[in-house]
Amino acid sequence: MHAVARRARTAAAALAPAPRTLRDAALAGVADALVARTGEIVAANADDVAAARSEGTPESVVDRLTLTPERVAAIASDVRDVIALPDPVGEVQRGSTLPNGLELRQVSVPLGVVGIVYEARPNVTVDAAALCLKSGNAVLLRGSSSAHASNTALVAVVRDAVAEAGLPADVVQLVPGRGRESVTELMRARGLVDVLIPRGGASLIKTVVEQSTVPVIETGTGNCHVYVDESADVETALAILVNSKAQRPSVCNAAETVLVHEGIADVFLPRALQALTEAGVTVHGDAAWQKAGDGAHGPAVVPATAADWADEYLSHDLAAAVVPSLDAAVEHIRTWSSGHTEAIVTADTAAARRFTALVDSAAVMVNASTRFTDGSQFGFGAEIGISTQKLHARGPMGLPELTSTKYVVTGEGHIRR
Amino acid sequence: MHAVARRARTAAAALAPAPRTLRDAALAGVADALVARTGEIVAANADDVAAARSEGTPESVVDRLTLTPERVAAIASDVRDVIALPDPVGEVQRGSTLPNGLELRQVSVPLGVVGIVYEARPNVTVDAAALCLKSGNAVLLRGSSSAHASNTALVAVVRDAVAEAGLPADVVQLVPGRGRESVTELMRARGLVDVLIPRGGASLIKTVVEQSTVPVIETGTGNCHVYVDESADVETALAILVNSKAQRPSVCNAAETVLVHEGIADVFLPRALQALTEAGVTVHGDAAWQKAGDGAHGPAVVPATAADWADEYLSHDLAAAVVPSLDAAVEHIRTWSSGHTEAIVTADTAAARRFTALVDSAAVMVNASTRFTDGSQFGFGAEIGISTQKLHARGPMGLPELTSTKYVVTGEGHIRR
Repeated sequence: MHAVARRARTAAAALAPAPRTLRDAALAGVADALVARTGEIVAANADDVAAARSEGTPESVVDRLTLTPERVAAIASDVRDVIALPDPVGEVQRGSTLPNGLELRQVSVPLGVVGIVYEARPNVTVDAAALCLKSGNAVLLRGSSSAHASNTALVAVVRDAVAEAGLPADVVQLVPGRGRESVTELMRARGLVDVLIPRGGASLIKTVVEQSTVPVIETGTGNCHVYVDESADVETALAILVNSKAQRPSVCNAAETVLVHEGIADVFLPRALQALTEAGVTVHGDAAWQKAGDGAHGPAVVPATAADWADEYLSHDLAAAVVPSLDAAVEHIRTWSSGHTEAIVTADTAAARRFTALVDSAAVMVNASTRFTDGSQFGFGAEIGISTQKLHARGPMGLPELTSTKYVVTGEGHIRR
Repeated sequence: MHAVARRARTAAAALAPAPRTLRDAALAGVADALVARTGEIVAANADDVAAARSEGTPESVVDRLTLTPERVAAIASDVRDVIALPDPVGEVQRGSTLPNGLELRQVSVPLGVVGIVYEARPNVTVDAAALCLKSGNAVLLRGSSSAHASNTALVAVVRDAVAEAGLPADVVQLVPGRGRESVTELMRARGLVDVLIPRGGASLIKTVVEQSTVPVIETGTGNCHVYVDESADVETALAILVNSKAQRPSVCNAAETVLVHEGIADVFLPRALQALTEAGVTVHGDAAWQKAGDGAHGPAVVPATAADWADEYLSHDLAAAVVPSLDAAVEHIRTWSSGHTEAIVTADTAAARRFTALVDSAAVMVNASTRFTDGSQFGFGAEIGISTQKLHARGPMGLPELTSTKYVVTGEGHIRR
């Protein structure tokens, strides 16, 4: 691991001053090579898929793991999209001439070596490599062991294309070893790895955040809330709630809890129960929601416990409570949220203003679905993850979030008096 | 500790939405109260100073610890300067209307609860509290135990003034306990404390960086280099070298190593040895420097070992080497630098461009002293520390570095298809 990280460090030093044209040419080569070498990629992937099936892996996970020629072409197309994005490196973020004549510039620079620990999705291997290459970073990829054959094939293709373009192949490397110990070594590589981005399972992310000596960007845990204000338009609230919960329940920006102002509960709860049931959602509710579910023909509501407020279900389940006020909703969110995304549905500008001011999460939606918290929805073109921490990056992380800055100060013999 | 951190968290939630006028009024109250209550502050400080003297503390440290009425007035004046700085909170950093009509804004927000571990300088207590108050953050101050009486008095004055202005006093708190265990508890308060900024001794910073589960901003270790290029003007190089090393050797932006291109060594080394000796500097040199010091009337050069390349002397000592090329100087810097500040002295624009591109440090000076890496020199008005890491903040940290961001997204019933 240390040898790999050291090679990454050396490669990063060579990549950092490379001009955009060179990095873009390497990306174009990667896209072409992915298409040209689709056969070997799909063949390697077939081994992973067969192994996963024989281990009884759920079909939804197998589906994420599977590569077809069409999917490889789509991955190559994503790489071409990255080429078109603005160069995040070398941008002057602030600059001035100081009173003594010194010229001060704060310039964006690559972070250096980026470590990424991720789930069994081979497309992430190429996405992450492309975003790091574009932003001038070397990357150490530690994918899931169940995608090992696919990742090995993909990284070989990427490295060949990078070398072909005249850049060091070691800017893209797979972390050796398949067990947890390879993650541990990555976490201890302080001074060699500049940042570690864990993606995927909550327990992995927690381990990395608590044990890493390398700086970490925490991503992806989304216990998201929809608050339906007293003044909300009922149809709007229903549409946003159902979309936030059920449009794609397995992702981090799906809603997990709905909070409803008591002033609108009588009208809203029966309608919401009906709409949620139609969408296949099971409601885990407080007393008020249970009562609303007690109607002769209404769907049953599962009694909620504190665990429901904490849970990121990632399924067709939804925790539900009635709150006496907007401030009580904010308090509930402050207590239980993972700080990813919260939405308010309201017709009252003062309520919208208060909610956005008081809620301390990466994204706050006003009259919009939580599902919009996403790099491509936000127009960033690509995304390496969604940060739920406050340092360095918060919310969807695009190319600028893969850079640091450097001050360049130019004088003509200036000394300090 | 946990109770203190929880109170800070609650206070931070109340402070975050407070408008600038309220925060500035609190700061004005703090400045006034410091002046009005100078007597009790100076009396408390006298206890610390007496204890430090009786323990045989070096006079330079006692001097940093000492408060006089004039120094208290200066601290109050610094607080007034903070009032005049631009509000770092609520600034829209990017914003657009997305193709679907959603309005996206990325707004700067306070970090939340900031923990600061610092040396025996009571002025830092007030500076840090003022910067955090201005940026809407609650602060947990863990000062040196040798300044405990002074810090207790200062925090009492600050808290009274904050409460007087109608904000929760708990936005400024001293961490209870004096031993290392109070630092340990602060490091473990993940979820309550948003960021920890260690200042002062290298061993403390190392401990915090390696053991903290709270995100850390590493500050202040400065193994800074001056590289004298083949094309340098000798007089300019001498002035910058002596200023970088000797103007104030005890601070992190002082130079610790000089690297000289072999093409200018014959001319530069004898002149440099003379100038450095006159400035009271002892040179720890490689073979070339030792040879230059062997002249009948020249000053002696101490033979350098690898430890000298690594050392942050913080004294009138300087490591010195001759290098065959600019790239060799860059390589030496990459190997040994702490990533704080490096300077090149050169008359060659290509050399300046290559050095600034290849050197990976927070600040790179061209024909200017390393001593300029400083928040007030950079025109930031105030500084909480100098970050030597790449995440979140790099270089002098002013008010903007004490904020995070939040995305506020406004629609009219937008759902995702």
